Amino acid sequence: MRFSPLLEQLIEAFRCLPGVGPKSAQRMALQLLTRGRENGKRLAQCLHEAMQHIKHCESCRIFSESTLCEICASQHRDASLLCIVENPIDVTAIEQTSSFRGKYFILLGHLSPLDGIGPEEIGIAQLKQRFEQKEIKEIIIATNPTVEGEATAHYIAQLAKPFVIKVTRIARGVSLGSELEYIDPNTLAHALVGREVI
Amino acid sequence: MRFSPLLEQLIEAFRCLPGVGPKSAQRMALQLLTRGRENGKRLAQCLHEAMQHIKHCESCRIFSESTLCEICASQHRDASLLCIVENPIDVTAIEQTSSFRGKYFILLGHLSPLDGIGPEEIGIAQLKQRFEQKEIKEIIIATNPTVEGEATAHYIAQLAKPFVIKVTRIARGVSLGSELEYIDPNTLAHALVGREVI
Repeated sequence: MRFSPLLEQLIEAFRCLPGVGPKSAQRMALQLLTRGRENGKRLAQCLHEAMQHIKHCESCRIFSESTLCEICASQHRDASLLCIVENPIDVTAIEQTSSFRGKYFILLGHLSPLDGIGPEEIGIAQLKQRFEQKEIKEIIIATNPTVEGEATAHYIAQLAKPFVIKVTRIARGVSLGSELEYIDPNTLAHALVGREVI
Repeated sequence: MRFSPLLEQLIEAFRCLPGVGPKSAQRMALQLLTRGRENGKRLAQCLHEAMQHIKHCESCRIFSESTLCEICASQHRDASLLCIVENPIDVTAIEQTSSFRGKYFILLGHLSPLDGIGPEEIGIAQLKQRFEQKEIKEIIIATNPTVEGEATAHYIAQLAKPFVIKVTRIARGVSLGSELEYIDPNTLAHALVGREVI
């Protein structure tokens, strides 16, 4: 005997969450049933509504329940400057710096042919449309500094070429507060090549 | 700017799960939206049904969508032998041993006055009713060997006294496969006091 069928189903359903194995799933289900039914109901409701109503912003692909997200709809952002990131969370990170007043485009991933993620999956068609509107003067490619992120950046740079758009990539170099002896050689090489006049 | 209101709500709702902090909640919400909407909908559905329909078995308090759980409804289990455990998961652990053919009573917690968990919360009234039915000849108290578990065991033992029921406690001693030098003194003391003739 394990648990009742409905409870087994719930435990199984929790397994779809990232980082949740059989033991955590069990703990989640049992804890909600024991002393969190109200929370459980609220979670079910939020989840249902989110899966139903959250679409993508038509302009930047970020998750949004309205047609245009807050940033894309804003009149105060510079539409000639487009920052391209992999994930919605990266937008939050960049916004926190208060150093960027342009708009965004979110790829929702990076090129990864082995996982079946090609240009179509990361919204390249939509990005090309944005280029064709001729509003954009510069794109800042802020994909992650990983192998896949660099490959995606390279792909997008090629794509932008015919449109006479200035293409930049966020600087790769040493982190503030780090110590040279602990920095990996590749990063250090980038920091040397990208050195700035002071 | 953070995320859209609906997405923020979903992230907040995930925080009710045990072991889920702000970062994991964010990751869960974003991952379900990015590539798991079907899973998300299924989880919402399962959660809704479970919170709505899973009640407690009327006899043993385990989670069950039927009035009596499988074990309580079974004709093949010895109704004169009652094993009292803290949590539903403990039933699974004991069932896995295949060494117990009696029935169970699940406290769904342990006495913990500081957390506001008294006899009422752990179903003592219901347990007393079971004693009064005079079917039970022996109770095996299998609460956890922790301070709270021992206190709860002691409380139940006192409760059973007037009913002339044999009260036993699962043996405390050394784990199979462990090494004496690493066993804590309290466990070793219990193992010495509870020594058996071979």
